Amino acid sequence: MRVTVNRKAHFNAAHRLYKAGWSDEKNLAVFGKCSNPLYHGHNYDLTVSVTGEVDPETGFVMDMKVLKDLIKIEIEDAFDHKNLNEEVAEFKTLNPTSENIVVVIWNKLRPKIDKRHKLSVTLYETPRNFVSYCGE
Amino acid sequence: MRVTVNRKAHFNAAHRLYKAGWSDEKNLAVFGKCSNPLYHGHNYDLTVSVTGEVDPETGFVMDMKVLKDLIKIEIEDAFDHKNLNEEVAEFKTLNPTSENIVVVIWNKLRPKIDKRHKLSVTLYETPRNFVSYCGE
Amino acid sequence: MRVTVNRKAHFNAAHRLYKAGWSDEKNLAVFGKCSNPLYHGHNYDLTVSVTGEVDPETGFVMDMKVLKDLIKIEIEDAFDHKNLNEEVAEFKTLNPTSENIVVVIWNKLRPKIDKRHKLSVTLYETPRNFVSYCGE
Amino acid sequence: MRVTVNRKAHFNAAHRLYKAGWSDEKNLAVFGKCSNPLYHGHNYDLTVSVTGEVDPETGFVMDMKVLKDLIKIEIEDAFDHKNLNEEVAEFKTLNPTSENIVVVIWNKLRPKIDKRHKLSVTLYETPRNFVSYCGE
Amino acid sequence: MRVTVNRKAHFNAAHRLYKAGWSDEKNLAVFGKCSNPLYHGHNYDLTVSVTGEVDPETGFVMDMKVLKDLIKIEIEDAFDHKNLNEEVAEFKTLNPTSENIVVVIWNKLRPKIDKRHKLSVTLYETPRNFVSYCGE
Amino acid sequence: MRVTVNRKAHFNAAHRLYKAGWSDEKNLAVFGKCSNPLYHGHNYDLTVSVTGEVDPETGFVMDMKVLKDLIKIEIEDAFDHKNLNEEVAEFKTLNPTSENIVVVIWNKLRPKIDKRHKLSVTLYETPRNFVSYCGE
Repeated sequence: MRVTVNRKAHFNAAHRLYKAGWSDEKNLAVFGKCSNPLYHGHNYDLTVSVTGEVDPETGFVMDMKVLKDLIKIEIEDAFDHKNLNEEVAEFKTLNPTSENIVVVIWNKLRPKIDKRHKLSVTLYETPRNFVSYCGE
Repeated sequence: MRVTVNRKAHFNAAHRLYKAGWSDEKNLAVFGKCSNPLYHGHNYDLTVSVTGEVDPETGFVMDMKVLKDLIKIEIEDAFDHKNLNEEVAEFKTLNPTSENIVVVIWNKLRPKIDKRHKLSVTLYETPRNFVSYCGE
Repeated sequence: MRVTVNRKAHFNAAHRLYKAGWSDEKNLAVFGKCSNPLYHGHNYDLTVSVTGEVDPETGFVMDMKVLKDLIKIEIEDAFDHKNLNEEVAEFKTLNPTSENIVVVIWNKLRPKIDKRHKLSVTLYETPRNFVSYCGE
Repeated sequence: MRVTVNRKAHFNAAHRLYKAGWSDEKNLAVFGKCSNPLYHGHNYDLTVSVTGEVDPETGFVMDMKVLKDLIKIEIEDAFDHKNLNEEVAEFKTLNPTSENIVVVIWNKLRPKIDKRHKLSVTLYETPRNFVSYCGE
Repeated sequence: MRVTVNRKAHFNAAHRLYKAGWSDEKNLAVFGKCSNPLYHGHNYDLTVSVTGEVDPETGFVMDMKVLKDLIKIEIEDAFDHKNLNEEVAEFKTLNPTSENIVVVIWNKLRPKIDKRHKLSVTLYETPRNFVSYCGE
Repeated sequence: MRVTVNRKAHFNAAHRLYKAGWSDEKNLAVFGKCSNPLYHGHNYDLTVSVTGEVDPETGFVMDMKVLKDLIKIEIEDAFDHKNLNEEVAEFKTLNPTSENIVVVIWNKLRPKIDKRHKLSVTLYETPRNFVSYCGE
């Protein structure tokens, strides 16, 4: 009896698409206005999904308050109101595309979640563009 | 050619998280304000998803009006404007966590759906907390 | 140059529609399933709107963090995960209809907001039913 | 490291549920008001999901601008502000149920997407009724 | 103590923008693809807002169930799954723009609402285009 | 017979709250993390509302395509994927709070809208924080 529990969170951040080692011109040619050297930004919405057996004692897969706090500490405190390229260590050399951000988030959360549980993360960059990753 | 058809529904209910056999004090220690003995409540949103072959005659996996009526009879009439702990038989002894509610809903719907079809249920307790179950 | 600033918040609560002094039967006759003596509940969504001059120093009508904290202290801490009829003083004798709840919220917030500012409150009981009040 | 990228789009169209070869009466008996011979219509919302490896050069599974343009050319330009039964070739003889529309959309997009990528399409006929298809 | 109560509803319909007395060519020149002679359609969302004194007996401005039923009878039953131009009497000679539809809805509801109450109607043609009318 | 027509739009931008003439320290003391010198960002959602008489010829208050194009040229092209503080002339010396942004947008649109029409603008900085301005 495996159930998936999902918790939504959000953070607001600036970024630019920028491939380290390429010139600003090449970055602009490939990434267009998303590569503006002065940055733009988003309200990122995040859904973290954990799949596992329901504990017959508590009726929980995992306590949602624990999951909420974990997302706050690991992701919101690290990313919210930040410049992803300049202030988040993982993106100093990694292009902060949605794809790369969702993998970074998954990698940060994975060690904090019970190993028997499956983890999946969905990240909305805008209401029309979103990505998901489940570690496979 | 297997397509998934999804139908949304909703019900408003009171509940408290309460493990039968534990004292109110232990319930409050584990479940916090969600265990308030005087209850709190939610607008629950439900998505029922049925996967199967498209019938070449009708172009339907299953008639959405039939699915809508089934959800009304089995779930909305049983849960809407009710106190889940006190008035819904399944939760007399089962803690009405989101996880347990979604499994109960799945179990109530499964016998009413064509055996060749796969059934999955998603339940939103709030816009930020939701769970899903597909019977595996 | 008067701008309206709006802040959303939410709380989850149990209630029943109940006119003090009427029998349970009369309450059920008038209020239907909303008067279930064992309660039901909602995820209430709240928008608090404050209209005033933009301060040329800060560019704010009022600091949104201050407004957010005010709503938390005055409304969320008082109503969230509560039984409105049994645990919120204002509804001991007042029927917790959406109309009465929105007026109570407005009355609680009005003394905390700058007198030169206009205050309006909108309360969603469900995504389909909502009410608003501006003190007039 | 396979990530799913999702792009939303929409189109507004008229249709009626109509099985070619059946009389209007039989169509009305089976499909009810959805078979009104004078048509009704919807704001269709569409999510196109592409799963594949993240390109280490660009950080993209596929360029979202390319995906957006592809959806516009293949789907929006073909379906938007059209009568599906009368003006879209695929539905001249195929009943435009949500199930059949989502399969048609998938079939139109599949040849335009990198063969190594998985494609899935979700179509909302209304906010309460939606379908999805992944080619299996 | 005047409160506004709001109720949401929806209907799905086909229409075309068409000025009676103009040729199809002139209609297409002025209204573009919205004037397609074979129609297109929308999921229309409707909010009906009624402002008045709160009744001290019931705590209601007006019973939401009564308002819900009124919208069903007057608007949903008349417009849902219909071709507005061909099947709704008011639009036989009146162009069914959003502006004209919202005025027609207001005019149909106004005689059914207590004269002491103010009535306002908002109509969403799409999530991005909407109109409102309050009879002034 | 005055109707309000509303059109939604959006832009993604970076900004920081920064009062020109104050030190970074004072800006941080007053504006907190919103004053991060390396910027953060938002998906801004915009609703532009125009109130006027319905033209009996067209059934329009104003052509929504014209309004859509006007918002694109005046606002989206100027603000989207930009750093508001550094790249938008109006905010070189004006703190880009939501209040100041909504007034700037209103001032840019007002001369382009028929003088007989009323103009109102609502700007969402996040789904929970939004402001509106109608020129009064």
